[in-house]
Amino acid sequence: MTPMRQNDGFSDEERRGVYRAIYERRDVRSHFLADPVPNDVLGRILDAAHHAPSVGFMQPWDFLVIRDADIRQTVHRNFECASRRAAEAYHGERRKLYDSLKLAGIVEAPVNVCVTCDRARSKGSGLGRQTDPAVDVYSTVCAVQNLWLAARAESLGVGWVSILDLEQLKTTLGIPAALTPIAYLCIGYVSEFRSQPDLEEKGWETRSSLESVTHFDRWGVHDWCDHDGSEHGKGLKE
Amino acid sequence: MTPMRQNDGFSDEERRGVYRAIYERRDVRSHFLADPVPNDVLGRILDAAHHAPSVGFMQPWDFLVIRDADIRQTVHRNFECASRRAAEAYHGERRKLYDSLKLAGIVEAPVNVCVTCDRARSKGSGLGRQTDPAVDVYSTVCAVQNLWLAARAESLGVGWVSILDLEQLKTTLGIPAALTPIAYLCIGYVSEFRSQPDLEEKGWETRSSLESVTHFDRWGVHDWCDHDGSEHGKGLKE
Repeated sequence: MTPMRQNDGFSDEERRGVYRAIYERRDVRSHFLADPVPNDVLGRILDAAHHAPSVGFMQPWDFLVIRDADIRQTVHRNFECASRRAAEAYHGERRKLYDSLKLAGIVEAPVNVCVTCDRARSKGSGLGRQTDPAVDVYSTVCAVQNLWLAARAESLGVGWVSILDLEQLKTTLGIPAALTPIAYLCIGYVSEFRSQPDLEEKGWETRSSLESVTHFDRWGVHDWCDHDGSEHGKGLKE
Repeated sequence: MTPMRQNDGFSDEERRGVYRAIYERRDVRSHFLADPVPNDVLGRILDAAHHAPSVGFMQPWDFLVIRDADIRQTVHRNFECASRRAAEAYHGERRKLYDSLKLAGIVEAPVNVCVTCDRARSKGSGLGRQTDPAVDVYSTVCAVQNLWLAARAESLGVGWVSILDLEQLKTTLGIPAALTPIAYLCIGYVSEFRSQPDLEEKGWETRSSLESVTHFDRWGVHDWCDHDGSEHGKGLKE
């Protein structure tokens, strides 16, 4: 049966754009160019972030845009120090590989954006947060992913730097004590988007199969019987 | 200055598709149709989720697809009970408004998907998690948002139900004790995508302005001086 098509359906090319953004998005660390990001383009990707879903329509996020080179240098030193400490967890070949990875482009990317969550924001009146208070943080991450995909459509690379002392970052950026930094993003035009994630290309980790992480009706069931009982599908392939 | 355009740039229509998905995505509760979701379409939106960014390429997510009507009924009862308890936080007009809201389409949507995070998964070897262990959860939320946007491009509505007793949900779905449920999603074709979020339309909450949540270089600075010092921009508008 062909499902009802909506009047507000996407054209094939519009739909392809969405999948291209999803599949061709990269966590960029190495390929930033110095070209400035125009205000209107930056405004578009921030507005995309601002239109993320949020629990109770709480919109718990703030976006701190950093272009100042001195501030980015200070954040870069924070990263270097945190990364040196993190490296101590690895030994032998793994340590060599870790040391060879480029994990941040804080200084090279002309724009950095710190995305925070205000967990005490009264907007939304707590709707949807009674059983799982963490959903405000989840809303903020949805904003990050919106920004990341819009950026890809604008040919902008984005890298998420998680190796940072967050308290020190808050001090550097003057973020109010009550707020939680969720993501520190490096943003800029790039010389290329690689076809694979860096960590896959460098041999740090492999991609798991979709089938191995998908279950049907019961945990651990990776195939399903079609809903009318008359046909057996093998996983997701028809 | 016009920034360098990439060979792998998006056509105008592809880019429009990305922004349409972002702006026309809704948290759907009321407009689900019973039409089945074909396996190939479901496979595409799950594969979109599986191509989210993840810290250290950890891919900490699992997707439990629920079509079984009895299981969805059980989850619906969990929601009803949790929502009744949550309602007690509201009084007077606010309580009346809460009671009038439709907050989940668990039974009406033909497909539900529970997205979990395996916080002990060894993939990624802990890379990027030393300073903020929560980033594996953030990766899982990025997968949810990828699914949500891909679904919109496929004319599928998605609703995120956060009003659930999560321990009870784990028992119902047989989710291993060590895993964390992050999102419970209701998915199906819809009679319409509303032009505004339900909670905005019904007067529960208003949208904040982008300007009020955007800061430049220093917290609380909502305008910026252009990087070469020669021009002053007013916020994000050029």
